[in-house]
Amino acid sequence: MLDKIKQKKTKKAEATEELRVMQEELIDLANKAKAQKLPVIITIDGWSAAGKGSQISRLIKYLDPRFYDVEAIRSPNDQEKRKPWMHRFWQRLPKAGDMLILDGSWYRDTVNALMFGEIDKEEYKRRIRDINTFERQLTDDGALLIKLFLHITAEEQKARIDKLSSSEITRWRVSENDVINNRNYDKFFRRYDKTLERTNTDYAPWHVVPANDKLTARHDILTTVSTAIKGACEAKEKGERFKPAAQFDTIEVKPEEFKLVKTKKLSEIKMDKALDDEEYGRKLEKYQNRLFELQNLCYQRKIPVIIAYEGWDAGGKGGNIKRVASALDPRGCVVKPIAAPEPSELARHYLWRFWTRIENDGHFTIFDRTWYGRVMVEPIEGITPKERADMAYREINEFERQLTDWGAVIVKFWINIDKDEQYRRFKERENTPSKQWKITEEDWRNRGKWEQYEEAVDRMVELTSTDFAPWTIVEGNDKKYARVKALKTICKMIEQRLLADAE
Amino acid sequence: MLDKIKQKKTKKAEATEELRVMQEELIDLANKAKAQKLPVIITIDGWSAAGKGSQISRLIKYLDPRFYDVEAIRSPNDQEKRKPWMHRFWQRLPKAGDMLILDGSWYRDTVNALMFGEIDKEEYKRRIRDINTFERQLTDDGALLIKLFLHITAEEQKARIDKLSSSEITRWRVSENDVINNRNYDKFFRRYDKTLERTNTDYAPWHVVPANDKLTARHDILTTVSTAIKGACEAKEKGERFKPAAQFDTIEVKPEEFKLVKTKKLSEIKMDKALDDEEYGRKLEKYQNRLFELQNLCYQRKIPVIIAYEGWDAGGKGGNIKRVASALDPRGCVVKPIAAPEPSELARHYLWRFWTRIENDGHFTIFDRTWYGRVMVEPIEGITPKERADMAYREINEFERQLTDWGAVIVKFWINIDKDEQYRRFKERENTPSKQWKITEEDWRNRGKWEQYEEAVDRMVELTSTDFAPWTIVEGNDKKYARVKALKTICKMIEQRLLADAE
Repeated sequence: MLDKIKQKKTKKAEATEELRVMQEELIDLANKAKAQKLPVIITIDGWSAAGKGSQISRLIKYLDPRFYDVEAIRSPNDQEKRKPWMHRFWQRLPKAGDMLILDGSWYRDTVNALMFGEIDKEEYKRRIRDINTFERQLTDDGALLIKLFLHITAEEQKARIDKLSSSEITRWRVSENDVINNRNYDKFFRRYDKTLERTNTDYAPWHVVPANDKLTARHDILTTVSTAIKGACEAKEKGERFKPAAQFDTIEVKPEEFKLVKTKKLSEIKMDKALDDEEYGRKLEKYQNRLFELQNLCYQRKIPVIIAYEGWDAGGKGGNIKRVASALDPRGCVVKPIAAPEPSELARHYLWRFWTRIENDGHFTIFDRTWYGRVMVEPIEGITPKERADMAYREINEFERQLTDWGAVIVKFWINIDKDEQYRRFKERENTPSKQWKITEEDWRNRGKWEQYEEAVDRMVELTSTDFAPWTIVEGNDKKYARVKALKTICKMIEQRLLADAE
Repeated sequence: MLDKIKQKKTKKAEATEELRVMQEELIDLANKAKAQKLPVIITIDGWSAAGKGSQISRLIKYLDPRFYDVEAIRSPNDQEKRKPWMHRFWQRLPKAGDMLILDGSWYRDTVNALMFGEIDKEEYKRRIRDINTFERQLTDDGALLIKLFLHITAEEQKARIDKLSSSEITRWRVSENDVINNRNYDKFFRRYDKTLERTNTDYAPWHVVPANDKLTARHDILTTVSTAIKGACEAKEKGERFKPAAQFDTIEVKPEEFKLVKTKKLSEIKMDKALDDEEYGRKLEKYQNRLFELQNLCYQRKIPVIIAYEGWDAGGKGGNIKRVASALDPRGCVVKPIAAPEPSELARHYLWRFWTRIENDGHFTIFDRTWYGRVMVEPIEGITPKERADMAYREINEFERQLTDWGAVIVKFWINIDKDEQYRRFKERENTPSKQWKITEEDWRNRGKWEQYEEAVDRMVELTSTDFAPWTIVEGNDKKYARVKALKTICKMIEQRLLADAE
C-alpha cells in the first residue's frame, strides 16, 4: 500500500483559507458527534519524525478540550506488562460522545515490539488477529475508528532527524530508535506495509497520509477526519451502520474458529449429587489446602487465574465463592461482585468494565456474576436487543481467548439448582429474619421467567464452552457437594495448565 | 508505647472455642457494617516476620469475600512515584459498606522510606502530618479506621527469620530488608515508637498487638476489630460520632495553619475591563507561546500544574479553557469536566474523585468545575448539610497543600460576570438555535439564587486563598480580557515557581 502514496506539495497561499473553513467545519462536526453520543477514536501512527505530535496539535486546536483526550502510546510500563497486552487500550476507550486521539497506537506497540525483538513472529501474528478483533468489536458497538498513517520518504526522514540533531535545543527529541528507524528504512517499510495490509478491513480501513509536506498532510488529515465523522453521524441519524470510505482494497477477516467441547443441557443434569458432613469436611480441607499450594505456584509463575460464577438466584454462589476465597492468600485474590453498570460503564462497550477489572498476572480474579449477563439478563429483560446480544457469544469467546493467550486459566461455573429447590430456599429466606434481605420481589419475578432463563443458559453453555474456557455445571441442590466440586475443578484446571507448561 | 506491651502465651485448648464464637460474631458485625454502609479500613503494620499476612488470612477467613479487599502495600512503583505520595492510598479507599484491609500501610511507607534513606527527616515529619490529616478526614467522613501494630521481640523475630531461612521452601520469603530490620532492632524500635506516638490520635488511635504468640495475637486482633466495628455501628445507628477506645494516651493534633492572602469581595471587583481585537490577538499569541515554552520546562522538571476553573453559568469557562488547552501540547494536558458524581463516587469521601483524577507529574490537569462544588452548590442545593460542607474549607486547604508539597503549581480561577451580563448571555443562547443546548431550566433556577451563590463565593475565596493556592478573580464581562488574564496568570504562577526553584 505504501508504494502507492505520492508525496505532494501544497502552497500556503492557496491552502490557508480552505484550511480555516475546514477547521470550522470540524468544530461543528465534533459538536454533532458529541450530541449524538458517537465515540470517536483516532489513531495516528507513522514513521519516526513524521510529525504526529504537531499534526495532532493542529487537528484539535479549536475543538472543545473537555470532550477529547490525547494520549501518547509508548512502550508498556511495568504495571502494564502485568496485564493482557490489549488491556491498556481497552482501559483508555472514550465514553460515547467523547474523542480519543492516540499518538501511536496498538500498531506502534506491535511493529516496534517485533522489530526490536521483544516479540517473535508468532506473537506478531496473534497481535494482528487481536487488533482485527478489537477493531471489529469497537465498530460493531458503534464506535467510529479513524486510522491514519503518516508516511514520509527515507530522505525526508533523514533530513528531519539531522535537523533536530543539529541543534542543542531539539537534540533531546531524537531517540536512538528514531535513528534505527531511518537506518533500516526498507525493513520498516516492508513491515509497516504488511501490517497495514493485514489490518485494512472494511470496518476500519487505513488512510495513509503523504506527510513529506506538512501542509499537505494537514489538509489530508482534516479531510479524512471530517468526512468520517460526517458520514458516521449521518449513518447514526438514519439508524444505519456506517461504511467508511476505503483508500485501498480492504481485506476480509475470517472469524476466528473456536473448538467447542460437548456439553449437556440443564435438563440432562442429574441433580441428586450430595455429600455427607464427614466427607464434606475431609474433601473441603483437602482441596482448600491444595488450592493454596497451587496459588503459590501461580504467583511464582505469574499465571493469572480468572474464575467466573453464574447461577440461579439462591443457587449458593456466595457461600461457594467464600470457600474458594478463604482458601487463598487474600493478598493475591480479589472478588468482584458485578451489579448493574454505572453511567460511565453504560457509555462504553459492555466488555470494558470486565477488561478493566482484570487483576495482575499471578493473581486470582473471582467474578460474582460476569460478562455473561449480556446473553442472559440483558436480552430477557429487554435491556439489549436480541440481535445485538447474540453477537456476544463470539465476542466473549474472543475475549476469553485473549485472556488465555495472555496466560490465564479460566474457570466458569454455572451453579445449578432445580426449580423446587429454589422455591424451598426462597421460602426459607422469607421465613428467616436474618436472611430476608437476600430475597426481593425481583427474585420472584426472575423465577417467573425460569424457562426463558433455562433456554438462555443452555445456549450460552453450548456456544461458549471452548476448549480453552469450558463451562462447568455444578450440581447445587446440595451446597456441600457444590462447594467441593468447585474447589476440585479449580485445582484440576490449574494442575492441567501446569502440566501443559511442563511439557 | 511499645515498651508497655507485655507478650503473653495463650493455651490452645482454652482459646479454640472462644475464638470460634468470636469469629462468628465478626461475621454478623461485618454484615451489619455492610447494611449500615459503614466504610471500614483496617491497617496492619508491624515488625518484619510479625505474621501480618497469616493474621489477615485468619481474620477474614469467614467473611464474605465480595465485600472486603486485602492489599499488600509495598514500595511505590514507578507509576505511583509520579503521583502525590498519598495518592495510592486515596485510590484504594473502599466504598461505604466495604472493608479494606491493608498489609502494611502509609506507616510502612513512611518509616521504611526514612530508615532506608529514601526521605529525610523533614519529609518524614511532613508525612506524619499528612497521615494525621488523612486519618482525620476519613473519620470525619464517617469511616472507621482500625490501626493495628503487630509487636514482637528481637529474639522472637530473629528466631522466625532464622527458621524461614533454614528451609529451601521458605527461604524466598526472607528479604534483605527483613534481616536489616532485625539487625537494627533498637533503631527501628525507637522509630516505630515515635511514629506510633505522633499518630495516636483520639479519632484514629493505635492498637499494639503482642504477637510473639500467634494465638494471643489472633485473639487480640479479633477482639479489637469486633469491638471497634460494633461501637461504630452502634454510634451510627444513634446518629452519633464514634469514639474509638484508646489503648494509650492520645495526642491532640493542632490544625494546620494556613497563611491566607487578602482578597476582594465580588462586589468590589471592577467589571469594566476589556480588550480590543488588536490587543487581544497580540496578547493571546504572546501568552499562548509563552505557556507552551513553560509546559516544556514543567515537563522536563516534572512539575505538575493543576488549573481549577469555577465561575458563573455562562461566564465563559469553556472558551477560556479552550484558549489555555490549545496552547499546550495535548499529550501533556487533560481537561476534566466535573459533572454530578456517580454512585461509586458518592459512596466515598467527596475528595476521592478529585484525588484519583490528578495526572502524573510534569502534566497539566485542568478541572472544569472542581472540589469547590462542596462549598457552593452542595450546601445551597441541600445535597450536603451546611455544617458538613463548612468542614471543607479546611479539608480543601489541606488537599491543596498536599498537592503543592508534591510539587504542583495550583491556579484557581473564578470567572466573574455581573448579573446583567449573565442575563444577556442567557437570552442570547435562547435565541441562537446552535446554542440552545447550552441553556437549561436549571441555569435559570441557579440564577434565582444569585445572592446565595455570591455569598458562598465570597466566603470560599476568603477562606481558601492560601499563599500556596490563591484564587484569581477574572473579570469576565469581556471574554477576550478574561482569556488573556487567565493565560497571563498561569504563565506568571509557573514562572514564579521556576524562579523559586532556582533560588
